[in-house]
Amino acid sequence: MRTVKIGLLGLGVVGSAVSRAISSDRGMADRSGVKLEVSKAAVRDVSKPRDASLPQSALTSNPQDVVSDPDIEIVIEVMGGENPAFELITSALESGKHVVTANKEVLAKRGGELLATAQQQGTQLLYEASVGGGIPVLDAIENDLAANQINSIRAIINGTTNYILTRMSSEGAAYADVLADAQRLGYAEADPTADVDGFDALYKIVILGQLAFGVSAPVDAVYREGIRKVDAKDFRYADELGFTIKLIGAAQRTADGLMLRVHPSLVPVGVPMASVSGALNMVEIEGDLVGALWLQGPGAGPEPTASAVLGDVLSVARSTADTAPATAGAAELELAEMGSHRCRYYIRMTAADRSGVLAQVAQVLGDADISIRSVIQMDTNESEGVADLVIMTHSALEANMQEAADRLSGLDVVVELDNLIRVESYDHAD
Amino acid sequence: MRTVKIGLLGLGVVGSAVSRAISSDRGMADRSGVKLEVSKAAVRDVSKPRDASLPQSALTSNPQDVVSDPDIEIVIEVMGGENPAFELITSALESGKHVVTANKEVLAKRGGELLATAQQQGTQLLYEASVGGGIPVLDAIENDLAANQINSIRAIINGTTNYILTRMSSEGAAYADVLADAQRLGYAEADPTADVDGFDALYKIVILGQLAFGVSAPVDAVYREGIRKVDAKDFRYADELGFTIKLIGAAQRTADGLMLRVHPSLVPVGVPMASVSGALNMVEIEGDLVGALWLQGPGAGPEPTASAVLGDVLSVARSTADTAPATAGAAELELAEMGSHRCRYYIRMTAADRSGVLAQVAQVLGDADISIRSVIQMDTNESEGVADLVIMTHSALEANMQEAADRLSGLDVVVELDNLIRVESYDHAD
Repeated sequence: MRTVKIGLLGLGVVGSAVSRAISSDRGMADRSGVKLEVSKAAVRDVSKPRDASLPQSALTSNPQDVVSDPDIEIVIEVMGGENPAFELITSALESGKHVVTANKEVLAKRGGELLATAQQQGTQLLYEASVGGGIPVLDAIENDLAANQINSIRAIINGTTNYILTRMSSEGAAYADVLADAQRLGYAEADPTADVDGFDALYKIVILGQLAFGVSAPVDAVYREGIRKVDAKDFRYADELGFTIKLIGAAQRTADGLMLRVHPSLVPVGVPMASVSGALNMVEIEGDLVGALWLQGPGAGPEPTASAVLGDVLSVARSTADTAPATAGAAELELAEMGSHRCRYYIRMTAADRSGVLAQVAQVLGDADISIRSVIQMDTNESEGVADLVIMTHSALEANMQEAADRLSGLDVVVELDNLIRVESYDHAD
Repeated sequence: MRTVKIGLLGLGVVGSAVSRAISSDRGMADRSGVKLEVSKAAVRDVSKPRDASLPQSALTSNPQDVVSDPDIEIVIEVMGGENPAFELITSALESGKHVVTANKEVLAKRGGELLATAQQQGTQLLYEASVGGGIPVLDAIENDLAANQINSIRAIINGTTNYILTRMSSEGAAYADVLADAQRLGYAEADPTADVDGFDALYKIVILGQLAFGVSAPVDAVYREGIRKVDAKDFRYADELGFTIKLIGAAQRTADGLMLRVHPSLVPVGVPMASVSGALNMVEIEGDLVGALWLQGPGAGPEPTASAVLGDVLSVARSTADTAPATAGAAELELAEMGSHRCRYYIRMTAADRSGVLAQVAQVLGDADISIRSVIQMDTNESEGVADLVIMTHSALEANMQEAADRLSGLDVVVELDNLIRVESYDHAD
């Protein structure tokens, strides 16, 4: 299997997550047919302790060591900011390296120049992680939706402001109080300007406008309004009118050209964007064939960003070499029997409406190692002397439940076991 | 620009939509750098009238004419069913052609053989449209999430059953009544077995299990339960317990192996899957790096399916030849001025609490060509003689609104124009 050497520019939280994900592998090499290896990482301070699964010898304080290392095929830039990222990415591309970056600011401000350099050099510059974190947005637009004329993109693309607005909405709290709390909890930075004044969302919508509509908009030419003025009162009044408030970035084809804008918006309760809560992101894309799509997920965070960065890295690595066919990474996985499934169960039965019935039912379930979470008696039919009995169980084994269901059906007091529906688990401790 | 000749197997609603999308182009060639052309289409009855933008001379009733035509580079199979699709896809791959298909049944039952044939021949077999219609699910798993170990996929992947369950839930209606109505409206087929008994969802989850976990499961080995037994009562009781009911297809890594299952499930109100309504689909993917992603959109329909089919076709076409650099298809698009934006506005102001105020405010808005949709007076402060005035306008021009806002701020009766928030439009007639 071919080994592809990676150079990292930046080893902060995202860079460290990328490095850990590469060294832990988790079947990645088997799935993709290439083995990744971080051979060098440029950092500001080589002596700073970090959790990056890298030997000290791989660290350098000189980023030129990374961009000019002839063994490095792919450079990952995760320093952020316009400079020196612009010069370093340019330099790496000019050295014939492919570059993967998560840097929205440099792409929004200088993306056209960087992509032109990559094209001249015949190298690839990929930046899925720059918009929507772990959500595959750019690949969807560029590849999956390539047959569509894109008409509209609207997005919740800043997790910090969505976290603040969600809490203001649910708690009726004031902006300043929620911001202070978000800063304390690490959801907002000490200087929150980039997020709350809409710069981060602006960079992302400019990137989307470039990719989907081919329009290179100067960031200063785009309307941008942050969330500082949104008041607890506005949430209360909006709610009465049937709306919630979200910070929206939009890129839309109009009769006047491409409308790019970033500002708080009233969003009708009931549309998909209205229910995106906390630090999640959602991108809504409308194409002339596909109609509307909604892509939702973690828009930030070290591991989700590493997921997008490494998706790009593997794409480059697989495209530049004969790779071994992927084995899909789980050849050893057996097909599990349905009997081994575990979940909670909803049981509805028509049962005799008299005392002692529940004791018999509970006995059958108990014998099968199934505990009852709740019981509700519904819709009593007095003339027939029966009632609906609805039982929710705690998590149980399917095989046990099937056995219990057979025995319940056989009970004299059970007229009919009407339905048994599994409950999807969303709590991993469930 | 290079022209890529396409052969179609099947020219029903999906095939016709693919053909129309190719002939209408809509900037597709400019965006992708290749020109597509349908040179032959195999149909059952060449004399049947159809809306496929194809000359009569392109039609043939012999599918061998398509799979053996040396000019055809890519064959699109949209006939559906296991046979003769399996033989025709095999034959096309063996003739060195790339194949793009939307056929979930043949992939679920014979996908392993077909992919092996493609690999032997060095050709590509792509099938994004087979799962989730226009939603980019397979590309996301195979490429964007390549660095992840996928732990769980759960999906609403059958639009017909989701349409039926959504109406049962919202109307309290009986299964048989909603099914009959769905058949009348074209949401369900005369023989609804494939949908309501879960076969369609089964095929799709088997495909996802193969792609994400490398497990080729015989379709008969997977637990499958349809929606026929779900009763109006179950929705009522589930609702009391905080749940709704969805038909879920799941592929999950467990201690016992890969658990594949298709059955109705209680889904907690509040999770993303619970709010997927009507014929929409949603795929929830959990990876070890990215966490959870939710991809939502139209899971069926001619145009969304054509979007996915053509995304694959363009991917093949671009990978097999030097293509002209994409121009992003909209080089002529100007950046629009924010002043040309049109939307409804929410205006909150602190105004004098006396008669005649609304008349003055309405006058200013009317002068700027802005009509009022609703006015609510809130939170009167009697000691200061002021109240909050909340106005929702009809759709108006941003430039006019900005001018009106300036004039409103200047009115004696307006203590402060506290906030002006745009309303996102979801009604294209808005």
